[in-house]
This record gives sequence, C-alpha cells and structure tokens, in this order.
Amino acid sequence: MSQTTVSLRGKKRTHTCGELRVKNINEKVTLNGWVDRRRDLGGVIFIDLRDRYGKTQVVFAPQHNEPVYQIAKQLRSEDVIAVVGKVGNRPTGTINQNLLTGEIEVLADDLLILNEAETPPFPIDSEIDTSEELRLKYRYIDLRREPMQRNLQIRHKMAQAVRRYMDGLNFMEIETPFLMKSTPEGARDYLVPSRIHHGKFYALPQSPQTYKQILMVSGFDRYFQIVKCFRDEDLRADRQPEFTQIDIEMSFILEEDIYQMAEGLMKTLFKEVKGIGIETPLRRMSYDEAMTKYGSDKPDLRFELPVENVTEIMRGSEFKIFESNIRSGNLVCGINLKHQVDDSTRRAELSRKQIDEVTEIAKSCGAAGLVHFKVIADSIDSPTAKYFIPEQLKNLREKFTAETGDLILLITQPREKIFQTLGQFRLELGKKFNLIDQNKNSLLWVTEFPLLEWSEDEKRFAAMHHPFTSPKDEDAVKLEEGLKEFKEKKEWSSDNPVGKVRARAYDLVWNGNEIAGGSIRIFHPELQQKMFSCLGISEEDARRKFGFLLEAFKFGAPPHGGIAFGFDRLVMLFTGSKSIRDVIAFPKTSSAMSLMDEAPSEVGQDQLNELHLKVI
Amino acid sequence: MSQTTVSLRGKKRTHTCGELRVKNINEKVTLNGWVDRRRDLGGVIFIDLRDRYGKTQVVFAPQHNEPVYQIAKQLRSEDVIAVVGKVGNRPTGTINQNLLTGEIEVLADDLLILNEAETPPFPIDSEIDTSEELRLKYRYIDLRREPMQRNLQIRHKMAQAVRRYMDGLNFMEIETPFLMKSTPEGARDYLVPSRIHHGKFYALPQSPQTYKQILMVSGFDRYFQIVKCFRDEDLRADRQPEFTQIDIEMSFILEEDIYQMAEGLMKTLFKEVKGIGIETPLRRMSYDEAMTKYGSDKPDLRFELPVENVTEIMRGSEFKIFESNIRSGNLVCGINLKHQVDDSTRRAELSRKQIDEVTEIAKSCGAAGLVHFKVIADSIDSPTAKYFIPEQLKNLREKFTAETGDLILLITQPREKIFQTLGQFRLELGKKFNLIDQNKNSLLWVTEFPLLEWSEDEKRFAAMHHPFTSPKDEDAVKLEEGLKEFKEKKEWSSDNPVGKVRARAYDLVWNGNEIAGGSIRIFHPELQQKMFSCLGISEEDARRKFGFLLEAFKFGAPPHGGIAFGFDRLVMLFTGSKSIRDVIAFPKTSSAMSLMDEAPSEVGQDQLNELHLKVI
Repeated sequence: MSQTTVSLRGKKRTHTCGELRVKNINEKVTLNGWVDRRRDLGGVIFIDLRDRYGKTQVVFAPQHNEPVYQIAKQLRSEDVIAVVGKVGNRPTGTINQNLLTGEIEVLADDLLILNEAETPPFPIDSEIDTSEELRLKYRYIDLRREPMQRNLQIRHKMAQAVRRYMDGLNFMEIETPFLMKSTPEGARDYLVPSRIHHGKFYALPQSPQTYKQILMVSGFDRYFQIVKCFRDEDLRADRQPEFTQIDIEMSFILEEDIYQMAEGLMKTLFKEVKGIGIETPLRRMSYDEAMTKYGSDKPDLRFELPVENVTEIMRGSEFKIFESNIRSGNLVCGINLKHQVDDSTRRAELSRKQIDEVTEIAKSCGAAGLVHFKVIADSIDSPTAKYFIPEQLKNLREKFTAETGDLILLITQPREKIFQTLGQFRLELGKKFNLIDQNKNSLLWVTEFPLLEWSEDEKRFAAMHHPFTSPKDEDAVKLEEGLKEFKEKKEWSSDNPVGKVRARAYDLVWNGNEIAGGSIRIFHPELQQKMFSCLGISEEDARRKFGFLLEAFKFGAPPHGGIAFGFDRLVMLFTGSKSIRDVIAFPKTSSAMSLMDEAPSEVGQDQLNELHLKVI
Repeated sequence: MSQTTVSLRGKKRTHTCGELRVKNINEKVTLNGWVDRRRDLGGVIFIDLRDRYGKTQVVFAPQHNEPVYQIAKQLRSEDVIAVVGKVGNRPTGTINQNLLTGEIEVLADDLLILNEAETPPFPIDSEIDTSEELRLKYRYIDLRREPMQRNLQIRHKMAQAVRRYMDGLNFMEIETPFLMKSTPEGARDYLVPSRIHHGKFYALPQSPQTYKQILMVSGFDRYFQIVKCFRDEDLRADRQPEFTQIDIEMSFILEEDIYQMAEGLMKTLFKEVKGIGIETPLRRMSYDEAMTKYGSDKPDLRFELPVENVTEIMRGSEFKIFESNIRSGNLVCGINLKHQVDDSTRRAELSRKQIDEVTEIAKSCGAAGLVHFKVIADSIDSPTAKYFIPEQLKNLREKFTAETGDLILLITQPREKIFQTLGQFRLELGKKFNLIDQNKNSLLWVTEFPLLEWSEDEKRFAAMHHPFTSPKDEDAVKLEEGLKEFKEKKEWSSDNPVGKVRARAYDLVWNGNEIAGGSIRIFHPELQQKMFSCLGISEEDARRKFGFLLEAFKFGAPPHGGIAFGFDRLVMLFTGSKSIRDVIAFPKTSSAMSLMDEAPSEVGQDQLNELHLKVI
C-alpha cells in the first residue's frame, strides 16, 4: 500500500510550472506537475515539468544529490511528481527564448513520485496527429495537449466576457428547466421517461424558446442564458446532440435594439479574444439580396464574385440550351471570375485545362454545364459567342463590368435552384483561386427572411425560423388573405399569399457562417393562432402543445424579440478550430456516442421496470 | 386584425418606469409597461405604470387631452401600454417617498394599448397570499410579483459574483456532458433512451463528479461550473428533480486550500448580497465533536445549548430507568436549558405546564421520557432528585456549569440514537425559547466524516460522501485490515475496521444548513479499487461503471479534491426565502410535475417507436 498513501502534505507546490523567472533565482521552491520530457545528458537528467501554466526545466545531477538522481532515473513521461529545489540560471547557450521560464531551471534537492503513468496511447506533443477516435476514447490525454488546453481557455474567457457584457447591459441570467414538455416542432426531442407518472415523458429542451418568452411576459425585460440545448438528429459534421447556446430575449424593442446589443457583444469578443476592433453598425442585407447576389442566406463577403441574372440579356439568341431554358421559365445567371492568372503559364487568361476544371466544379455544384466567355480587349472569346448578337455580348460585358482577362461563367437552371447552385459555385471558385482573405472578418446581418417555406413533400408550409416569429407589420394582411384562400380551396399551394410574407427575422453571419439567429416575436394570442393555422397546426394541437404560452399571452404580453448564438461554433471560429469537437471538452461522435465512457449503454432491468418501459 | 398588428414602432420607451426624477421635469418621454393600478379621482385617471425597474405615475386628464382620457378609461390592470407625455412635478402633498420616482408624474399626451390583459388569476400585489398550486400554474403572473423579481435578481447577481470570483482565482468554467453513462450509485438516474443505439440509454448527470476528476487528470488544475444536476428521487420539501450546483475541483491541493477558496467565495457573496463582512478562517469542527456536542453533522451554532454526556456521573443511582439503561450499555445525556423565564408568571423558573410542553417536545424527537432538574440556589429540585446521592447532583451541576434558574434536561437512549435525538431536541428548544439570533450568521466546517456508513438493511457499507473520497492517510491501513477481515469472515459486519476509517471529507454549514460538501479524492487506481471492494462493488462492476475513470488514473492522475455548493439552497438562504421553489424560475412540484406546461406528458406513438420503446 506504499503507493496508495502517497501524500502531497509537505510537498505542495509553492509555484506553478509557468511562474518562475530570473527574479526567483536562489529561491527554494516546490513544483508539482507532469513529466513532459526527460533527457539524459552526460549523466545529468533534465526534465520539463509541465502543468496548465507552463513548463519548467528541472535538473537532477548525481554530484548534487545522488539518491534523488537515482529516483529521477525511473521517471517516465506523464508521471506526476513533486520536486523541491533551488532556482538557478540556465548556463549560457541553453536559454530557451520560446519559454517564459526559459532563462531559469530548478536544481532538484528532493523528488516525490506522486503517481506513476503508463505509456500514454499517443504522445501529448501537440504536433503529432492522432486519429480522432483514439483522441475521443482517451479524452483525458487529448485534453492535456496544448491546442485543447488553449481552446478551452478561450471558451472560458469568451463565456466570462459574454456574461460580463450582458450583465453590464442589465440582462439577467435566468435558468430555465431541462425537464420540459415534449413539443415535437422542428427537430426531434430527446425524451426522459417519468418514473412517477406512468407512461409520461419529459423532453430535454431544443432551446429555451417558450420559457424565455414566458419570462418576457413575466416582466423580466432582459434575459440571457448560456445554456445547453438538445436535438436528437442524425448528426452532420458540425452538430452535436447537446450543444451550447447564448440565448437572449428583450422586451419593448425593435430589430435595431437587437442588432446594437449583438454588435456590441461581437465587438467585446473580438477585442477580448483577438485583440482587434470591428466596425459597427454592421452591414445589413435582405434575404432576397443575399440569395440573388451571393446565392446564400449566409454569404461569405470576404470576397466578391456576385451572381448576376442575365436572363433578359441572353433571351432570344440562337444558343439553343439557353433559349429553351429561358422559354420554359428558367434563368440564365452567372459569375465573373475576375482576371485570374494561369498558374502554369503565368498568363492572365485561364488555360483550357483550368476552364475544364472550373466546369467540373460547376457540375459538382449541380449545374448541367457551364458556358464561359473570355473577355479580351474589346471582344469576347467563347465557343458559343457566335450564337449571340454583338449587342448581347456587349450587354453581358457591361452587366458584369468585365475587363480583359476576366472570365464570365454562365449556367441555366430553374429559379428555385440556380442561386443556390451559383452560391456554392462562388464559394468553390473563391477557394480554388485563393480569393478569400483569411485575415478579413466579414460580419453582416441578413434580414427579412420569408416567414414560411413551402414543403413540396408535405404540401404545406413550415416555419422558416420558428412558429413564434412575427411577420412584418405590412405583410400581416397576407396571412389573412392566405388563410381565406386556404379555407376556400381546402388545401395549401406553394403560391398561396402566405408564402410571400416576410418575417421580422435576422441572422448574424461571419465569414459565411451563421453564428446567430433570431426574430421579433408574435405577442398577441390571435396572431399566434393564425400563425399556427398557416402551419397546419389545429387549434386543439396548438392548445395541447403550446397552450401555456397562448394562455400567458392573454395576461399582458409585451412586444419582445430575441436572438441565440451558437456558442460552440462561435468558439470554433474564434479559436480557428476545424471542428466544434475541438472546443468541447467531452464531445460525442457523429453517431452520438461518447467513446470515453461508452454512453449510451445498457441499463438494468430494474431501472426499466421502475420506468414501466420495455425495449422492443 | 387591428389588434394583431399593433406595433411598437414610434412608441418605444425613451426611459424605463424606474428612471425618471425631478431632473427630467418638462422632458417629453415615452414609457412602456404594465398597468399596475388605476385610480379614477374626480374625473382624472391615475395609473402606476410598472416594469422591472420600477413604477411611474401617469396622469390622464380630460382637460389636457380628451381623446387620450377616453382611451385611458378602458385600461385594466396588467394591460401593456405605451404612454407619451411630459414629466411634471407631483402636486404638493401627493409626493410618494417610498418610490424613487415618487416626486414626479407623467401627464399623458398619447396612449397606445399594446396588449390587453384578462383579469389575472390572482393579484400581482406581493402582499397577497395565493396557493402555491395557482402560483405554479400561472408562473408568468407569479414571477411579476416583487419578491420573485427580487429573488431572481439576487440569484443572477450571485451567479455573476461566483463566476467573477472563481475566474479571478484562475478557475476555468468547463462544460461537462448532460448525456452521460448511467452509473447507478447513490440516487436514481434520469434515463434518456437512445434512438440510434437500440435498447441503450444515456443518463442525466447526478453531478459532474467523474468528469471533473477527469478534467484534473487532463491537467486543467482548477475547474468550476455552475451546472444543472438531476436526481430521480421521491422529493422532499427542499429538493427538486433538477437542481443547480456550483461545482469545483482543484489539483495539487490539501483540505486547507479548499477551505480558503470556499471561505473567500462566501466572503464575496456576503459582501455583494448582504453588504456585510464575515470573519475567516471559519471555525472547524470534527464530525465526532459536532455529533456528540450538538447531535448533528450540521449544527446551528447561532445558539449554544450543547449536549453533555453524563452517563458516568449518573451511573450507580437508585433511579431505575437510568440504571437499567446504563447497564445495558445506553447513555444518559442532556442539555442545560439556561435561565428561561416563564412567559405567564415572569418568574425565572419554568412552570409545570412548560415542563410538560418541553417533555412533549423531547418525546416528539424520539425520547421515551425526559428527566428534569431545576437548579435553585445551592440545591436541585426534581421529582427524581431523591434517587441520586448529593455527589451525583453536584457533579451534574458542574458538568453543565448550571446556575440558579437553569433547567437540566436528561434522556437515556442507545449511543447510536441519543445524539440525534438531543440534536433535534436542541433545535426545538432553540425555536421554542427564541434562543436563535436571526441576525447572526454562523458558518463552520464539519470535517473528518466517516468514510463509510453501515447499512443494517443491506448488511454492507455504503460511501458516506461518495466512492471517490479519500480516507485519511493515517486511516488507510484500516481499509487493508477490514478487507482482510472480510475475506476471512466472508461477510461484512458493522464492527469491521473499515467502519472506523475517517474520510478527507468536509461540509460547509451555515446556520444549521449544509450549503456545500466535498472531499479530497482518491487518485490512485489501486486505492480506488480497494474502496470499491469495501462498498461491495466487484472489479467487474467497477470496470463496467467507472472503467474510464480507473483507466484515466493509470496515466498520471494528480492529487486533487473539490467541493460542490447547492446553489438553489444558497440563494434561498441569501434571499431569506422559505422554499427553494421561490428562487427557481420554473420549479417542479413535489411529484416532479410542472404545473405550467404540464410536463411530463404523453408523447406520440411514433416517438416511442423511434426509440424502440413500449410503455407497460
């Protein structure tokens, strides 16, 4: 039992491993930490002793203390030790400028092995690449690596900064329940069986949406919470079954108040994490403009390459593909790839091979083909140029403000598809031709989203944001018209007027990533009921699922609105990580498993019996 | 649709309802808020307009603006309105000194009813008592009441203060998973069925215990989290199925480091919430002393009345009850109720009636009877005095340092029971005789808890704190001895040496409430394995349930320990609330129901099918 009763008493650190400097020379110190590296040099042992705060070189010299040297010979990487010794100068030539403690070392007088370590499954050295599976299984080892330590440090710092900022603006952090009512709108709920109430279930919150609205009805005025949310979805790369949200709601406000508050928050985070300023107010762009100009509701504006609609210019040519498409109602749109230099020839125009590559990219984005027009001096060079009259080619050039060396790339597709296709194509071109300035931070608001989106599968409308989002005042009348039309026709159609209603919804976009989204909410029970009707939720269903919210609205709900930031993604972007798993201490795999503790796992029959459940 | 398109645009508040002062007089302002009260006085309407920040009097006078006055006549309590008007002095004699805005009023030029309110199920006025059931069902109304607004304000403030303090000490807040492995130790887990992994379940954390220990193995050194935890227990008054914990863990530390950190935290909270200082270091008391002196592991030291063991003094008397009990190994212990005045007679000694009442209290605490000794001048007055020799009575007086007017109260019971009985009796006496100074704050550490407690039902030992708690260094050898004895006898008995092992565990107690508890942890896999053996957890079971922790300990676990504060209870005590439900925005009932949203509820068959579950 020698090993198990090792005690820190009398050997507790006086300093951390990142603390000692030249000013501490000749002090007697005790350090605790992990053996990072051991080197035996000419009968002297050097170790880097590591903790969260840094590394300090410790020297074991036989001529100084033979017994301690003998113990040190047994040391292995990741052993946990306590060292007592005197701080000294490192000999000239051995100073390490990369280390804050690099000018000193500790000459060991005493050594206690607090805990031995087996050889770790992979080295701690952050340079070494290890499979993610192994990293997740041995997460405790992975978390010792410098990038993970730094990421979680930044995450902590960001959470602190968010709370300080929100508190400074009089927001109150109020905890909302995790065991709530299942309301199967949107994503799938995680359910929690009740033991006491036979056959009944709680659900884990997909977001605290209804609760934060209730808090506004309660008069809390300004609420926020950094809170875990849950969605039982088939996971995409960038999703986790449990994720963290900065959840915010305000009363007696308009969109502008949300923008200001959120912009101030981003300003604070940029300052605290990156030490740089951002210009506010941020650019605002309507959903329509974002879609038709950049083919995305989260455009990456670190580079331009806007999409142009040239349908009217190209109409009436002898180019059959365009003509037949235009006649059937499709559009012709494209992008001007400005003045690119062929890497191999160093000429300002792209080679046949490069054009082929670009065509392949367009196809991978969903285009049937790609028509290109090389702009050279006053003319346009294209295999298809002969099918168009000079006026059309001139107008094409002008539309794209094209110059020599530019390459105009056109596709034709139905209106519902073409902008997304070109939006994706634009991003791929940006990557391929290195058009994205990695040092730039492009932040913007995308506003005026459609309130509803048509589901061709279900032949009905679904909420684009969520069912509590308010329509724009001037569009609310279209809800009335649409409901009237529905009552007459007894069915929904994609051209019902409700499809044209714009929402008071907004997304915050950073370098092509949606980092926050929100809306001004409906605050009258009648309008909320109309919204449910548009979504095909019957009065009875609405009462069953959201009855308490509708009920609450009867007792004096204030105008209110809010926003939620995806905190994991925000930290990922601020740390420059490639995956949200790298900014979460204990993430799950894409099949929602924890490789470290092997959750989910089987449970005892007694546990299931108590819950009145049977697995079938 | 008139009502549903009411917009705040152009009517957004310029000030809150708590903001206007004499310096704002003559300013044109817009206020938004709830109609708190309406009074019609001589053809003029006065309302108190309320928001989170305060109340402002608004005046609607027909001679000033007839149309607005007419609208104001429709106003009802809790309507949400926007008012435009000019700030004026209140007429002399109508100034309200209780209100920060009490010197001014707003003379209304315009009024917009943003939302009408039905008559609330109970008045918002905080003086009025309403059944808790109604309060929970209409929580959004209840939360408008001043005490609830204040409680949640203080809760927010405390959470902020905790985070600032911990951050200042270099602690990192790290989020741990909510979907974890079910480890049925201690309380019952809430389970979450997995849809993807047929027949498998996650569990909601009872505490982040294993994760925070893993974080220490990962080298994070100082971790904290304000975090929700879950226990599926039959609820007691002071428990909730989901509750909030301030969870803390530190590496390379001894008990003293935890005490200092926690004392600083309490100092901060007392300063920020109550504006008062507390003296540190706090008193420390061993579990043994707390139990034998105050009959409780969480003694309320706002008053004394210590328990004294007088078995040896009373041994060998002619008082048969004591004598037979002492001979069978029971103890005689008691309390000196110092110098109490009879309320009716104003005499310094208690009446027969009062002594009867005190006897009843003793019985309700579990005593079979109560023997009393009135201390008068040099003698003792008691119906039983004649059974004792003068030496015994003298020693009894001395033991209790009793003076004239005191009343010594003795009971006899087995050792295992008598201290708890007297502990409870002591508290009841404190209440009955108003011995508790409500303005006093008594904070202390109770230390050196037993590591294990004997379960007579299960004929085995259970962890008193939890299975990761370290024994005291000097007691660890008793674990070895106990395990050896178990191997020989093939069974556990209550007198096995492991029952004598003291733990490196500590509780923080405030006025008789346990507000935090923690321990120095085991950090060697072998010792952890021994602990599991003492708890009757087989190696295989241990591997299945805690394998990842045992595995992690192999790769260099540092000495570590921690503590957790019950945040709900802490807020309850700081706000002076009677129930933790009064400091939780949306609490559950004692049958774990949410009366507002009616969770738990039935879910769709499709949801159950996806989870491969059947309710039986």
